[in-house]
Amino acid sequence: MAAPSVPVNLLEKASALAELWSPRVAAQMNEIQFKVVRLKGDFVWHQHDDTDEAFLVLSGSMIIEFRGRSVTVNEGEMFVVPRGKEHMTRAEAECCALIIEPAGVVNTGQAGGPLTAPVDQWV
Amino acid sequence: MAAPSVPVNLLEKASALAELWSPRVAAQMNEIQFKVVRLKGDFVWHQHDDTDEAFLVLSGSMIIEFRGRSVTVNEGEMFVVPRGKEHMTRAEAECCALIIEPAGVVNTGQAGGPLTAPVDQWV
Repeated sequence: MAAPSVPVNLLEKASALAELWSPRVAAQMNEIQFKVVRLKGDFVWHQHDDTDEAFLVLSGSMIIEFRGRSVTVNEGEMFVVPRGKEHMTRAEAECCALIIEPAGVVNTGQAGGPLTAPVDQWV
Repeated sequence: MAAPSVPVNLLEKASALAELWSPRVAAQMNEIQFKVVRLKGDFVWHQHDDTDEAFLVLSGSMIIEFRGRSVTVNEGEMFVVPRGKEHMTRAEAECCALIIEPAGVVNTGQAGGPLTAPVDQWV
């Protein structure tokens, strides 16, 4: 799908998503996709061996757990998870976020499981 | 420079910039840089032949002029300028934005001139 030719309101797109933990592409720049997602509760421990993964929080706050450390990312903040770094995202209250990563990246990385979402699904 | 290991508040970083039209890198994912910028007035007509360029407005609103068309991008909205497409950004009131593009992209593209900013400068 081509990039939209009108501006996209990211929080509107994210907050309208029916499913939690299921990223949907809202825009694309070269091979990089901008995916909106709605989070609540705990995700799964996983990693992406071939790419960094950037998070930008659109509303609320999320926690990125690493082994032995956790980072809280609040509304308006960005955090980049380095490639190969095992992590688990969670949100105590509902949080909307933007994930920025190359097309084709699977949300659960190498872990798989029931929270695995289809790739390349646009809002 | 490595990616920061703490979350970055993008609007705080952008609004603290001393200079207008001078993007500074706030985070990096793979070879993609997230640059904060403070805009007011008119930029210069230019294009990037080798890459798309994504804009996310952090505060205020900006206008992206194309030949024969213009797009207003408001706070919270994203717009992707396709590669090779001549454009000119402007803002009537001060606007803070995030530019997402590969490392090494020059702000004035092929046009050059006095508003050309150094690349790879971090905040």
